[in-house]
Amino acid sequence: MKKIAILGATGSVGLQTFDVVRAHPELFQVYTMAFGRNVDVAIPLIKEFSPKRVVVQDLETKQALLQEGTSAEVVVGSTGMVEVSADAEVDVVVNAVLGSVGLEATLAAIRAEKQIAFANKETLVTAGHLVMEEAKHHDVSLLPVDSEHSAIFQALNGERKSDVHKLILTGSGGSFRDLTREQLTNVTVEDALKHPNWSMGAKITIDSATMMNKGLEVIEAHWLFDTPYEDIDVILHKESVIHSMVEFKDNSVIAQLGTPDMRGPIQYALTYPSRQRLPSPKSLDLIEMGKLHFQEMSFERFPCLKMAYEAGKVGGTMTTVLNAANEVAVALFLQNKISFLDIERLIEKALQRHQVIHHPDLETILAVDVETRAQIRENV
Amino acid sequence: MKKIAILGATGSVGLQTFDVVRAHPELFQVYTMAFGRNVDVAIPLIKEFSPKRVVVQDLETKQALLQEGTSAEVVVGSTGMVEVSADAEVDVVVNAVLGSVGLEATLAAIRAEKQIAFANKETLVTAGHLVMEEAKHHDVSLLPVDSEHSAIFQALNGERKSDVHKLILTGSGGSFRDLTREQLTNVTVEDALKHPNWSMGAKITIDSATMMNKGLEVIEAHWLFDTPYEDIDVILHKESVIHSMVEFKDNSVIAQLGTPDMRGPIQYALTYPSRQRLPSPKSLDLIEMGKLHFQEMSFERFPCLKMAYEAGKVGGTMTTVLNAANEVAVALFLQNKISFLDIERLIEKALQRHQVIHHPDLETILAVDVETRAQIRENV
Repeated sequence: MKKIAILGATGSVGLQTFDVVRAHPELFQVYTMAFGRNVDVAIPLIKEFSPKRVVVQDLETKQALLQEGTSAEVVVGSTGMVEVSADAEVDVVVNAVLGSVGLEATLAAIRAEKQIAFANKETLVTAGHLVMEEAKHHDVSLLPVDSEHSAIFQALNGERKSDVHKLILTGSGGSFRDLTREQLTNVTVEDALKHPNWSMGAKITIDSATMMNKGLEVIEAHWLFDTPYEDIDVILHKESVIHSMVEFKDNSVIAQLGTPDMRGPIQYALTYPSRQRLPSPKSLDLIEMGKLHFQEMSFERFPCLKMAYEAGKVGGTMTTVLNAANEVAVALFLQNKISFLDIERLIEKALQRHQVIHHPDLETILAVDVETRAQIRENV
Repeated sequence: MKKIAILGATGSVGLQTFDVVRAHPELFQVYTMAFGRNVDVAIPLIKEFSPKRVVVQDLETKQALLQEGTSAEVVVGSTGMVEVSADAEVDVVVNAVLGSVGLEATLAAIRAEKQIAFANKETLVTAGHLVMEEAKHHDVSLLPVDSEHSAIFQALNGERKSDVHKLILTGSGGSFRDLTREQLTNVTVEDALKHPNWSMGAKITIDSATMMNKGLEVIEAHWLFDTPYEDIDVILHKESVIHSMVEFKDNSVIAQLGTPDMRGPIQYALTYPSRQRLPSPKSLDLIEMGKLHFQEMSFERFPCLKMAYEAGKVGGTMTTVLNAANEVAVALFLQNKISFLDIERLIEKALQRHQVIHHPDLETILAVDVETRAQIRENV
C-alpha cells in the first residue's frame, strides 16, 4: 500500500489522480492532499478519502475546512506544502501544482527521497538545473505525468541512454491549429479554452493554443532526459494518438500511443515499473481512427515554441523569465485584460529585456521570477 | 568480436546480414556461411569475408567451390548445417534459412546455447512446441529478425510479461491489397512479386500477397512471446511504418516504427541489448509521410490468415500441415503450375484432410511434413 501526497489536488491532474486511487484501493491511500482555495471541490474528496493531512493556501480556507468538522490536520501555505512533501509517512508525492510555486515542494520531496510523480513542468522550466542536480545527488527519479514525457519515459524502458539519437515530442496544435496568424488577432478566451483532444486545466489549454506548452515540454524533456535541445524535435500530430517517440541511433523509433486519457500517465507514474488496469474500458482503436496525420511544426506560426527553444539554449535565468512572463501573460489573457497575441508579445519583451544570470541559485531564481512578474504587470 | 554463422547466406536476409557485418568489422566476424547452390552469389562473399567454414547443399556445389580454390572447410547438406550450428567457435547463429529445413539446425543451435538471430519462421510454425521447450530448457532466447517480431520484442523491452494485454501485428496488405477477390483470379507471378514496401525473397513476397505470411507470423508470435492466439491481433497498415505494437493492460500501446529496411531488425538481433548505427543514413520521416493508415484485416478477403489462426488454435501437427502445404503451393505457383487462388485451395484441402496429432515428436513432424508435400504434389 503506497501512501500518496497529492499536491494540486483540485486541479485536473489532481482530480484524475483520485480516480486512479479510487480504482486501486488495494494499492494506494491518499495520505495528504494540498489545494488552493477550492473548498467546494475539496470537501467531498476529504470525506471520501480521509487524508490525514490537508494543505491549503490561506487561513480563511483552513477556517472553512475546520467549520466542516474535518478530522484531518490542516496546514497552511507554501511552508505547509514543503513540510508535507518531506513527511516520513508519505511514499509518493504527486506534484500537480500549477506553476513554479511547486518548486520548493519538489526540492523537499527529492531531499526526502520520495517517489515523485511529476506534473509540474514549470518547476523544471524555471529551475531545471537545481532540481536535476538535487535529484541526481539523492538518486531520485522524477516519474513524468505529462503524457508526452510519460511516452518518452516508456519508450526508453530497457534502453541505454547512449543509444538515444533524438526525442520527438508530438503536439496536437491546440485550439487554434487551423487558424492563420491573422485570424488569431480577435480570438476569445472561450475559443482558446476549447482544446481539440485533451481535457485539461485552463492554463495548460491556453499554453497549448500558443504552443508555449510544447515549448515548456521541450525544456522539461531537456532536463528530465538529459538531452541537448538539438536532439529534441517537435512534430504536429493532430490526433494526439502517438504521445511522443524516441529515435535510437539504429534508426529504430519507439513510440507510445493511447487514447487522450491523462489517467494513463498518472497511473503509470504511480505503478512504475509495473502496470495496472486503467479505470477506463476505452482502449486505442486505430481501425476506428483510420488515419494519423503528421506535419511540420512551424516556428513562424508558433513563435512561443521558438522562444522556448531559444531561452532553453541560453539557459540560466532565461527560462525562469520565459516561464514567469508566460504565467502572468496567460493569467492576464484569462482575465480578458490582454489579447491572445499579446501573450507572445509580452513574453518576447521580457526575454529581450532580461540580462541572463548563469547557474543561478534558488534565491536568484525566485527574485528573477518575482521581478519578471511585476514588470509584466506594470507594462500592461 | 562476435563470430557469426549465417545460415541462408545467399538469401535476402543473409545478404543483408553481410551488409551489417561490413558496417561493423570491429564487432562481427563471419565464421561460417551456409547456402544452397547459388555459387555465383556466394563466391564473392567467401572472398570478401573469408569464413572458416562453408556449408552447401550438395557435393556438386562443394566441387564448384573447391575448384575456385577456397581455403574454407566445405561441409555438405543438412547434417553439415546442424554441425556448424553447434560449432564451439560460433557465438551467434543467424538462421535465415527458408522453410522448415531450418528446424534441425535451430534445435542444434539451441542445444549448444548460441545467441540465435531468428529469421526462419517456418521452423516455429512447423514445430513451435519442440523449439520453445528446448529454448526454455537451455535458457536460450530466439532474437527475432522478422520486422514485426523485432518490433514486438523491442516494445517489450523492460516490460513485464504479465502486463501485456495483446500483441498487434501490422501488415501492409501485400501486392494485391487493392484487388477484390474476383480480381485475384488471373493475377500472374510477376504481379505477385511486386511488394509495395519491402524488398524480400520470392517465397515471402508471395506469402505477403496471400496474407499467409501474416498468418505464419501470428503463429511465430504465439510461440516467441508465449501469447494465446486470442491476444494476437492483425491490422492492415499500408505504409509498413509501424512495424508492430504491444498493448499493455493499462491501455498503453508501445510501437516500434522505422523505414522498411530489414537491416534494422537483423542488426538489432546481433547487437541486442545495445544498438549501433545502421549502415543506412535514411531515418524515418513522418512529416514527409504525412499520413499513416489503418484498416481492419478481413478474414473473408484473406482466407489464408483465417486458416493460420485456425490451424494455430488446433495446434499439434495442424500447423506443420499448414506450413508444408503452403511451401509446396507457393513453389507450384512460382513455377506457373497453379493459379494464385489455387494456393489457398490446396492449403485448405490439406488442412481438412489432416487428422491432427497432438504433441508430436520431431520424427512425427518430419513425417507429416513429407507426407503433406507429397499429397499436394500428387493432387495437382
